[in-house]
Amino acid sequence: MSTPLKNDLLIRALLRQPVERTPVWIMRQAGRYLPEYRAVREQAGDFMSLCANPELACEVTLQPLRRYALDAAILFSDILTIPDAMGLGLYFEAGEGPKFQRPVRSRAEIDNLPKPDVSDALGYVFDAVALIRRELDGSVPLIGFAGSPWTVSTYMVEGGSSRSFERIKGLAKEDPKTLDKLLAHVAQTTADYLTAQIAAGAQAIMIFDTWGAALSPDEYRRFSLASMQQIIDKLPRERDGQTIPLILFTKGAGVLLTDMVQTGCDALGVDWTTDLADARRYTEDRVALQGNLDPATLRESPADIERGVAEVLASYGSGPGHVFNLGHGITPDIDPESLGVLVDAVHRLSPQYHR
Amino acid sequence: MSTPLKNDLLIRALLRQPVERTPVWIMRQAGRYLPEYRAVREQAGDFMSLCANPELACEVTLQPLRRYALDAAILFSDILTIPDAMGLGLYFEAGEGPKFQRPVRSRAEIDNLPKPDVSDALGYVFDAVALIRRELDGSVPLIGFAGSPWTVSTYMVEGGSSRSFERIKGLAKEDPKTLDKLLAHVAQTTADYLTAQIAAGAQAIMIFDTWGAALSPDEYRRFSLASMQQIIDKLPRERDGQTIPLILFTKGAGVLLTDMVQTGCDALGVDWTTDLADARRYTEDRVALQGNLDPATLRESPADIERGVAEVLASYGSGPGHVFNLGHGITPDIDPESLGVLVDAVHRLSPQYHR
Repeated sequence: MSTPLKNDLLIRALLRQPVERTPVWIMRQAGRYLPEYRAVREQAGDFMSLCANPELACEVTLQPLRRYALDAAILFSDILTIPDAMGLGLYFEAGEGPKFQRPVRSRAEIDNLPKPDVSDALGYVFDAVALIRRELDGSVPLIGFAGSPWTVSTYMVEGGSSRSFERIKGLAKEDPKTLDKLLAHVAQTTADYLTAQIAAGAQAIMIFDTWGAALSPDEYRRFSLASMQQIIDKLPRERDGQTIPLILFTKGAGVLLTDMVQTGCDALGVDWTTDLADARRYTEDRVALQGNLDPATLRESPADIERGVAEVLASYGSGPGHVFNLGHGITPDIDPESLGVLVDAVHRLSPQYHR
Repeated sequence: MSTPLKNDLLIRALLRQPVERTPVWIMRQAGRYLPEYRAVREQAGDFMSLCANPELACEVTLQPLRRYALDAAILFSDILTIPDAMGLGLYFEAGEGPKFQRPVRSRAEIDNLPKPDVSDALGYVFDAVALIRRELDGSVPLIGFAGSPWTVSTYMVEGGSSRSFERIKGLAKEDPKTLDKLLAHVAQTTADYLTAQIAAGAQAIMIFDTWGAALSPDEYRRFSLASMQQIIDKLPRERDGQTIPLILFTKGAGVLLTDMVQTGCDALGVDWTTDLADARRYTEDRVALQGNLDPATLRESPADIERGVAEVLASYGSGPGHVFNLGHGITPDIDPESLGVLVDAVHRLSPQYHR
């Protein structure tokens, strides 16, 4: 645990401290675009068996670091481990995404949601964190993560993926107090879960709010942001004298970044629909920014990928506080060579912004 | 044609002139949530046969006006009539949305796209416009519309609906000049098409840019906004001494509204993810705003719908320049009674903002 980090670029950038070049990691960097991932996934059987096996989760977490000069590892897991631990019966149907056997919709179902003992029910995650830290041996920091209470609750209430969020938006309007209760319950469990990830060795934390921006701005603040705030208020921000930076990411946030910065987080993820220059203005340089190349760019030629990287770096401009990433996860169809082009371009083109 | 409008609230609001109450109409107000629409649709056979039959298109256009005190009719048609007229072979597969038999992808396919004579190929649309105007007899104005060149081109290049826009984003990066050419071709045909709608009697025009905000802000300005500008520059803005207001709607635009206002349009559609108060700030009251209740609100109780209407009206606040609408189209599952609650609430609650 006490091995000092050999590469702490990510931590410094997230804390807006000076760096020599912009650190880079990629959302879903451990994923299906890598043939070695697909081989392990096949060995594990299904997706949740892979998450639940610390050795295999560790292996796929490390795979992209063997290929690319990335500045962080991110725990291989899923945002739906928490409702799974609450007994909702997570399963994956081929080509259909995640589903729950027992979604929660009524006041009674929400009142009766079990409060899982995370150290027991999600012990496999903390075992994976500890194992990954040991294997990393201080080479780069390990990012732990969870979904936002709103995003996780959309799956719990809808019973799976949704585009219209019919049921949970209905709950928000008809019985907002019951939704508050569900969100608070998920927030408390998530705070316990992330605290245990930090105790096990996670060196930075990211909260993924994929669906917050499907709400109106008022509802976003009332439901999604407020419940992320409940987590933030409970999280330890230091361990063994090291600050644990916290990144919030609401996909499609746009000007909501202005509200997000008030939470006391260290950094905000930004998707490609907001210019980083605008995001800096919205956040008045009070937090670091992470992003934001359109993942579609990775389907293009090496020259186009390099140009895309150059544009993102230029959009952020000079000074500390930028972590290079895509604006959303890398997709399964990407040629692994293309990600190499991206990472090399960040290494080559970013030092000029840190002189 | 020269019948003066008995109810010109929409036109005045779009031009930011004083009104006694906020006018209201609803995107997709002629649609599947109405049993009388479903009956006509069944009679017509498929969706495109309904669009192509001026009598039936007129009938479904008028249906919602018989039920609700709406302040505008909108032509019943589809944004894909233009590529259909270019010979791409539009068809609809059950549950799958629109498809094209002959998508255009290569430079050669784009170079060879026919330039349809709209008065011939799309004459059925102008016949419907003239017929609807006659039937409306000046009761409320008729809105004509088209898709934005970017949005229409996504279907033409992808071959149907898309969520990732893989092929057209590839074209944008690898061969932007060819994409410019496609967009300019669609823009020219759309300008001809909308000009002919105005000549046939359309009294306001709306351009629907459903997918512009899937681009980065720079790409949005370069491809989507620039090609809408090409249309705007060619459109007549007056007919028989009457101004023809122009509404642009990029779903999810957020702060891009700031750029859209530069085009010289009269009004901007706003979806529910941007507060109208913020939208007024972005646009500095230089244009009217149309929107923006979350369509999901129509699934709630009458009290919740009324509260939703009150919040939207309050968010816009006092003064001219607001047209009430949803933030996107009404969905097929809505109880027709619920739309009545919405329209009545706008009539009852909006006059206080116009004293």
